[in-house]
Amino acid sequence: MKKYFLLTPGPTPIPPQVAQKESLPILHHRTDEFGQVFVEVINGLKYVFQTKNETLLMTSSGTGAMESTVANLLSPGDEVIVASSGVFGDRWAKICDAYGIKVIKLDSEWGRSVEPQNIEETLRSNPKIKAVFTTHTETSTGVVNDLKTIGEIVDKTEAVLVIDAISGLGAQTLYTDDWKLDVVVSGSQKGFMCAPGLAFVCISPKAWKYVETAKCPRFYWDYRRMKKSVSEKQTPFTPAVTLVVSLAESLRMIKEEGLEKIFARTHKLATVTRAALKSLNLKLFADEKCACDVLTSAMVPDGIEGGKIVKTLRQEFGISIAGGQEKLKGKIIRLAHMGYIDQFDLIVGFAGLEIVLGRLGHKVEPGRAVGVAEKILGEHDKNV
Amino acid sequence: MKKYFLLTPGPTPIPPQVAQKESLPILHHRTDEFGQVFVEVINGLKYVFQTKNETLLMTSSGTGAMESTVANLLSPGDEVIVASSGVFGDRWAKICDAYGIKVIKLDSEWGRSVEPQNIEETLRSNPKIKAVFTTHTETSTGVVNDLKTIGEIVDKTEAVLVIDAISGLGAQTLYTDDWKLDVVVSGSQKGFMCAPGLAFVCISPKAWKYVETAKCPRFYWDYRRMKKSVSEKQTPFTPAVTLVVSLAESLRMIKEEGLEKIFARTHKLATVTRAALKSLNLKLFADEKCACDVLTSAMVPDGIEGGKIVKTLRQEFGISIAGGQEKLKGKIIRLAHMGYIDQFDLIVGFAGLEIVLGRLGHKVEPGRAVGVAEKILGEHDKNV
Repeated sequence: MKKYFLLTPGPTPIPPQVAQKESLPILHHRTDEFGQVFVEVINGLKYVFQTKNETLLMTSSGTGAMESTVANLLSPGDEVIVASSGVFGDRWAKICDAYGIKVIKLDSEWGRSVEPQNIEETLRSNPKIKAVFTTHTETSTGVVNDLKTIGEIVDKTEAVLVIDAISGLGAQTLYTDDWKLDVVVSGSQKGFMCAPGLAFVCISPKAWKYVETAKCPRFYWDYRRMKKSVSEKQTPFTPAVTLVVSLAESLRMIKEEGLEKIFARTHKLATVTRAALKSLNLKLFADEKCACDVLTSAMVPDGIEGGKIVKTLRQEFGISIAGGQEKLKGKIIRLAHMGYIDQFDLIVGFAGLEIVLGRLGHKVEPGRAVGVAEKILGEHDKNV
Repeated sequence: MKKYFLLTPGPTPIPPQVAQKESLPILHHRTDEFGQVFVEVINGLKYVFQTKNETLLMTSSGTGAMESTVANLLSPGDEVIVASSGVFGDRWAKICDAYGIKVIKLDSEWGRSVEPQNIEETLRSNPKIKAVFTTHTETSTGVVNDLKTIGEIVDKTEAVLVIDAISGLGAQTLYTDDWKLDVVVSGSQKGFMCAPGLAFVCISPKAWKYVETAKCPRFYWDYRRMKKSVSEKQTPFTPAVTLVVSLAESLRMIKEEGLEKIFARTHKLATVTRAALKSLNLKLFADEKCACDVLTSAMVPDGIEGGKIVKTLRQEFGISIAGGQEKLKGKIIRLAHMGYIDQFDLIVGFAGLEIVLGRLGHKVEPGRAVGVAEKILGEHDKNV
């Protein structure tokens, strides 16, 4: 017997009441019954995106929806900015490359956020820039980017701002319309507390003008076809029906708790996790000024192999945390605290980490991180 | 209280033991546990495709996988043949159009199959043709195409043969390798008895050479990246994990029954359905010489609105059948008998149809179609 605990940045655990919906007898997607669920889902998504813009749903991983923005907004040869500080920021550049888009890449040091001023200067000196791509929460490093400031900058230009909010939406503050974010992409398996397989995108009127003139090839990803289908309460192609039905349930839960409470709760879990990891003499990887609320990254202590921490936790204790990706492989560990991951899931994670770190030779006082967490969790907080 | 009966060509009903797997606690996709399931699924897919070729899985509707073949095999300006006799054949042409591929369209009359000789002649007079796209079972009309003959024809040329087998695979005979089908596409929600959201493609060595030189843009659909991931027992991006786990279960069921038995069972259900509908004085739409085994189409009697039959069956009796699409809208009805649709689901469908047709003024003897079906079902058949 082994219980599994997911402290990974997607998939995240699924509430039983959401998971159960997946196993109900399947609806046909061209019926009024499904149409009702679909409309509820689109409206629920608009609430989580905090937008009145056109909102579309596709059956794919989040990366598919990222690609859909490039295919729908741009034409080969167009110039864009990709502002990146990690693996997921870099993915924008790879997708643009695949479509023959010219990328001006603004890289920030991993562990820091992208620099809005840098974007502003680059836009000023390159008036042909069509779009700025960046990331909400960069979970490869654990930072959040200042989208509000970036939104104000890009809004003053002809360019559109495209945000990968796959890991942060519904967990860390993001207000699409108020922050003037033209296109925001997300996925079902993180803040939305569902299984992976659905992705979403909302498109401002400014960005929609790009959709009408873009020349990149697209069929499955074509927003024009999706928009027409949404107006008919359906999708162009057979969607992942059981996932849509389960998403309706998780959107109900999100609405019932309320976004602001979820943001505050997630922020508190981040505070707890940072304090807990620091109490184990782990150095946080992300600059604390821009550390995100959905995931905490910490440096692996000298002399310990990061992969071993992750592997032992999973194989021996059933606890999944994430290691570092690409150039951070083996160098950091990452604990997610988004979606259906709660305070006691984290307590389990801290306990497991104490055991494993101690065994690998790191000086650990058993119960220390758990105690630190309990202290913060026990404080009365009227916002949560 | 209303029970629902799906006699539609996808989504089809999901066996409870498969559906339940969807609701189990989710696995992380970068773990050995998921890797094991994934390898089992890829091997199971190869069995159903009857192939030793590279077989890939993507999170998308079937149409996404159709698009992936165009993006991976071709370059803008390439010339191809699309042999079509219905909505799904036509979809190949639409996708190719979106990618700037020049299409020679060979249309057969709807209700008949595509003509292999026509393909042969067109290939002979156009040696630059890079690919031939066609459909296994064309469920918009109810026919099956002669893929074995087409496979022999295309195999003698430099062109590759690409098959949409989304609705027919795992239900009606198709032998990828024996029939020399270079690329075959399918989806999870029909013969595979799963929820929609996963799509599959297998690629012959001949077609793989095209993958290496194709210039159409692709990122999410890129077979090269998927192939590398399969060798690492994973997918490039977060897959629809719960659907993959449930697919493993349905593949176990398919393997246990055996493909040949499933083909024979589906063929018998087709025989039953054709006889039953004819006994209600309905004229079959598809030419009986090429009628497919997975779905039966019949003309709506003069003076009756086809949409009304479909709507009444669903709204009043919970029975979903399909109507006609595009130019056949209102003119035909379609009953699927694939996947987890069994003989008694069809009996329910026939009973409902008798009630509704009678009410709409068609001369029906109550119980007639059910009786005809029972008679055939009662015959001992050692193959089923």
